[in-house]
Amino acid sequence: MRVGGRHYRSIFVDDDGWTVVVIDQTKLPFAFELKRLTTMEQAADAITTMLVRGAPLIGVTAAYGVALALRKDASDASLEHALDVLARTRPTAVNLQWALDRMAAVLRPLPAQGRAARAYVEAAAIADEDVETCRAIGVHGAKVFAELAQARPGKPLNVLTHCNAGWLACVDWGTALSAIYAAHDAGTKLHVYVDETRPRNQGASLTAYELGAHGVPHTLIADSAAAHFMQRGQIDVCIVGTDRTTANGDVANKIGTYAKALAANDNGVPFYVALPSSTIDWTLSDGIRQIPIEERAAREVTHLRGRNAAGEIVEVQVAADRTPAANPAFDVTPARLVTGLITERGVAKAERGSLTSLFPERRKKGHR
Amino acid sequence: MRVGGRHYRSIFVDDDGWTVVVIDQTKLPFAFELKRLTTMEQAADAITTMLVRGAPLIGVTAAYGVALALRKDASDASLEHALDVLARTRPTAVNLQWALDRMAAVLRPLPAQGRAARAYVEAAAIADEDVETCRAIGVHGAKVFAELAQARPGKPLNVLTHCNAGWLACVDWGTALSAIYAAHDAGTKLHVYVDETRPRNQGASLTAYELGAHGVPHTLIADSAAAHFMQRGQIDVCIVGTDRTTANGDVANKIGTYAKALAANDNGVPFYVALPSSTIDWTLSDGIRQIPIEERAAREVTHLRGRNAAGEIVEVQVAADRTPAANPAFDVTPARLVTGLITERGVAKAERGSLTSLFPERRKKGHR
Repeated sequence: MRVGGRHYRSIFVDDDGWTVVVIDQTKLPFAFELKRLTTMEQAADAITTMLVRGAPLIGVTAAYGVALALRKDASDASLEHALDVLARTRPTAVNLQWALDRMAAVLRPLPAQGRAARAYVEAAAIADEDVETCRAIGVHGAKVFAELAQARPGKPLNVLTHCNAGWLACVDWGTALSAIYAAHDAGTKLHVYVDETRPRNQGASLTAYELGAHGVPHTLIADSAAAHFMQRGQIDVCIVGTDRTTANGDVANKIGTYAKALAANDNGVPFYVALPSSTIDWTLSDGIRQIPIEERAAREVTHLRGRNAAGEIVEVQVAADRTPAANPAFDVTPARLVTGLITERGVAKAERGSLTSLFPERRKKGHR
Repeated sequence: MRVGGRHYRSIFVDDDGWTVVVIDQTKLPFAFELKRLTTMEQAADAITTMLVRGAPLIGVTAAYGVALALRKDASDASLEHALDVLARTRPTAVNLQWALDRMAAVLRPLPAQGRAARAYVEAAAIADEDVETCRAIGVHGAKVFAELAQARPGKPLNVLTHCNAGWLACVDWGTALSAIYAAHDAGTKLHVYVDETRPRNQGASLTAYELGAHGVPHTLIADSAAAHFMQRGQIDVCIVGTDRTTANGDVANKIGTYAKALAANDNGVPFYVALPSSTIDWTLSDGIRQIPIEERAAREVTHLRGRNAAGEIVEVQVAADRTPAANPAFDVTPARLVTGLITERGVAKAERGSLTSLFPERRKKGHR
């Protein structure tokens, strides 16, 4: 994705052929700083300290962490130590463990002298596959936008998005934002309303930053304002990402997504979810009952970080002293409110039959 | 209302019989500081600098401003000058002009020597009438809560509120919060979910402060989380205030109210609006088309104020640089989503016929 006119991925190997470079996302949106990772320990720290974030990017960072370890010492002990250290950086990240398992499966059978080079190849493959998945989601999403735009000749298509489902969470393109970038690059006139996405403000900081860097016209709004703009006819379509989708199309995503879907439904605005099929949990069929919702720190609600007049990033308290707070990180949008699921293979309705038409290998004999 | 165990109004005359005392609301929620107003100019400044806020409180402050002016100089010129200066403090505040018109009508016919004392009496009457209206709203609202609580014996009734419709915006009690205080004081077990109410955070700062000071159990949440809690059955009833209500029951209130009403509707949660009948505009019948929505500064979305580690109130930037933002201050909740309107005369359905049953003097012959 473009920053300052140059194309970047959120993680890449430097010109020296082995140093891993990431963007220090803790400095965003106020500074764009690259960070060079030369050891497995630095890669692990980059995950732990949230220099990198987003499931796909965390997985790729861990994969390159293995490569960095093997470059220094390709022994069995070194490989197992790296797998162990990296797995413990974010114990609940499914994608992280998946990437490490894939690296282990490829590398364990190899003799030590071949491992480092092979590890770089495998990590690059994981990264490239994520980019290709995201690119394909963008192509299918851009078609949806192009069709909607045809209904409003001469006017920009007004798109609402929530949280950050962009390239900063992936390796390139993103998911929901991939559709926006692909449509914009293909000449569809777009304007994006960006929900600030309290309490962590990923919309205000990351999504607004990405869209600005790429040159997509956008306007930041308080989360509460989205329904109002839909009621006034100022939003034509919503698109969001997802952390986990059930086989019947219920969508777990950042807290606030369900409220957007309700507003879209009340105002006849189509509501799309962009997702790699890897986030579909084919074993689940009732998101509200089956998906546990992570409760995060109350302090994320009562305090927040921003840049003060002196240019320093500081934390300020916004709530009254001793105010108790609750902070569910995700919510579940029932399938009935979802117009379509935009996957790397095309657009499905939010229902099992439509999803398994796109992914027939997931069709279970005798399953409803 | 109680602060530190003592009963306060948001404006009152000091024991000396003439100094006007207000709470410096710009310091809330971090400090409770009283400010003594001894001149008309100080009263005007208190309004301009938002030491006082909320339509009823602004009106009463202006009325006492007239009294302060007349205490110093009760001439016609002094009276007209005070009316003029005070009217210009917040040119769009309907209640402010209403209070000044009422003061003028009473004071202009009087000889100069009787004016100051009469001005204090009239200002006190305006304040007392507001308190009585708010108290009555609370009594009717508390009945609604008591009935709902009966359906959940032994468990607290979970109430959601948005923004600040409390005593800090009025003289005492408030509107939506009056119902909560009255129910709490009457022994109904309540717990209140408080929307933080971005972008100005009146929930996080003022409502959380009020409820804490009064001893009502409460939990602060991001605006986006309310729909999730309703979906999970953790909210039993919603209550909000309103800035303007149409004769058919459409409700203009703080941005975000409409989204709460949608979530309540989707989950079978009753949605009440508490209001003095003075906020009903009997000439309007379509809130979405007829009520203009104030657009406030973009900076309220991209920046915010809070207390830093050193205890200073500072402003920080939360959005990416050069991010454009939109900031509609209010939205309109259509009558179909409103369970009931809690007025000083009782509870009406959100429809003209039910409202005019409570306010028969507003029934127009031949009007639908």
